[in-house]
Amino acid sequence: MLFRFGLDFVREDKDGRSVNLREFLGRYVVLYFFPKAGTPGCTKEARDFQQYLPELSALDAIPVGVSPDGPEALRRFAEKEGLTFPLLSDSDLSLARAYGVAKDKGVQRATFLLDRAGVVRYAWSKVKVPGHAQEVFEAVRKLHETDSFLNPLIFVRRAKRAISSEPVPQEILTRLIEAAHLAPSCFNNQPWRFVVAQGEVLERVKKALPGGNYWALPAPAIVAVAAHPEQDCRLSDNRDYFLFDCGMAVGFLMIQATQMGLVAHPIAGYDPIAVKEALGIPKDYVLITLVVIGRPGDPEKLSEKHRAIELGPRERKPLSTVLGWNRFPEG
Amino acid sequence: MLFRFGLDFVREDKDGRSVNLREFLGRYVVLYFFPKAGTPGCTKEARDFQQYLPELSALDAIPVGVSPDGPEALRRFAEKEGLTFPLLSDSDLSLARAYGVAKDKGVQRATFLLDRAGVVRYAWSKVKVPGHAQEVFEAVRKLHETDSFLNPLIFVRRAKRAISSEPVPQEILTRLIEAAHLAPSCFNNQPWRFVVAQGEVLERVKKALPGGNYWALPAPAIVAVAAHPEQDCRLSDNRDYFLFDCGMAVGFLMIQATQMGLVAHPIAGYDPIAVKEALGIPKDYVLITLVVIGRPGDPEKLSEKHRAIELGPRERKPLSTVLGWNRFPEG
Repeated sequence: MLFRFGLDFVREDKDGRSVNLREFLGRYVVLYFFPKAGTPGCTKEARDFQQYLPELSALDAIPVGVSPDGPEALRRFAEKEGLTFPLLSDSDLSLARAYGVAKDKGVQRATFLLDRAGVVRYAWSKVKVPGHAQEVFEAVRKLHETDSFLNPLIFVRRAKRAISSEPVPQEILTRLIEAAHLAPSCFNNQPWRFVVAQGEVLERVKKALPGGNYWALPAPAIVAVAAHPEQDCRLSDNRDYFLFDCGMAVGFLMIQATQMGLVAHPIAGYDPIAVKEALGIPKDYVLITLVVIGRPGDPEKLSEKHRAIELGPRERKPLSTVLGWNRFPEG
Repeated sequence: MLFRFGLDFVREDKDGRSVNLREFLGRYVVLYFFPKAGTPGCTKEARDFQQYLPELSALDAIPVGVSPDGPEALRRFAEKEGLTFPLLSDSDLSLARAYGVAKDKGVQRATFLLDRAGVVRYAWSKVKVPGHAQEVFEAVRKLHETDSFLNPLIFVRRAKRAISSEPVPQEILTRLIEAAHLAPSCFNNQPWRFVVAQGEVLERVKKALPGGNYWALPAPAIVAVAAHPEQDCRLSDNRDYFLFDCGMAVGFLMIQATQMGLVAHPIAGYDPIAVKEALGIPKDYVLITLVVIGRPGDPEKLSEKHRAIELGPRERKPLSTVLGWNRFPEG
């Protein structure tokens, strides 16, 4: 119940307009199901959310009420109670069914808090109205605060070297490339080309790795990332975008890998000519990185130096050396 | 309760070893609090989790039991019941307090499901033991499945142009750069330099934008991203890493921005010499992008062409034209 994308539903609102829940993306959505407009419980619940509307708006959150009532009943309800947030008509109960709150011929009172990306992050079932709006508001406040922290996947990602030889299914590898392919690029040129090496071809690629990259040898897959300088913007003052755009794509690939429990470690240490030959990458493409892919392995199999890096703290320059406010950092 | 990082706690385990919950990062953690080893309810709960251990392991999940018992009592309990998963001693109840499940001098029976990044994604309070392990397993199964989908932030990110002039607080801007600074780079060179332009300096930067970037004019901040080619790897076959590494950093910045409800739109259309002058960026650095930052604005203020892009579907080449299996894509 907590994990679903809850957004791709079109419903008629109280003004008879077709609304796709997707329109609310980017805000926190308090999606609340109520049984019947105008009844005492539903009236109090709606008034409570209306009362919290300023606080919720300040946190970028919007309540959206859903009931089996028709649009006209919802319009009258909103008018009588002065409700200014969206009310959606779910006459056929399919939205309620998708959220698991359809009951007999109606709905259970239930509330879902969706984050800015449309993921259900909190669910209340069998809601009791008194105090509910405040409880929801507190949850929105916490979620808003948490989202101002560093993204957890960015935070935990490390360029790990301990990789197991366990195979990674093709659909999971595909997902990595799909994520990379969603990166932006100059003029939407999408200059990146990915070659996923597996099996015998992968063995040829591994022969092009120097001894220092011994740790990549168990990996069940390697993604080669290549681009042609002329297939992306080349602008004044040495601004070549093909490598920058590939970098954004690989950034997304790593986030997706981390979410799926994979190591995705981009390396620069390889013989590019040999790898290009092995993968049929044309000579005039730049093979900018090999991303070593696999499940986490046993750090004990790493060299002493690499094990220390693997298990030690992440090393970064002080932020002040890379960030300047209104002027270049002194660093 | 649902939103906390729950990992930075060191506890003694049943073998007297100090365990930091952080060690479990990368796996799903079923963190379950139980009142007292050896009592009937706690025994059944532990047996149930032990029984589900193969299924949980297959999904990369591990149960971790926590109770106020001392390590020796936990060791005896594990031995008697044949428990092979970690049991942690929380004698001073501080872990229980952090999770809000301390009660009088003990703990409430409660379970938390943490995702691979250590975020609590599901919580069960006042747990009834019968059927609980199965319910938890079902939740792990769903979470595992959801995590194999595209990352929601990658999925919803768009290079939006409708930006409001509402100010963005300095700590939020800092968080963007912190996220970018966590990207990997060749030999950990961290070649990126960020200059955040605001106020009068920002106005000078905006003067360097061409008419087509009119939409960026309301933005309350712009992040300039620059790097020096010699401050990062330059390897054979035209492999220059400074721009690629900056790309990965900007990829992370965009994910963080999306999580915080911000637009972060990298652009290439600007006079680089003028912007470098305005921000004191040395001439020998490449100013690869300006990332336009702000809260989402009103699409009605965009040109007709840009409004159509903003509200239309995302355009990407077919995956088969950018992805090849063991050989370069034909595309």
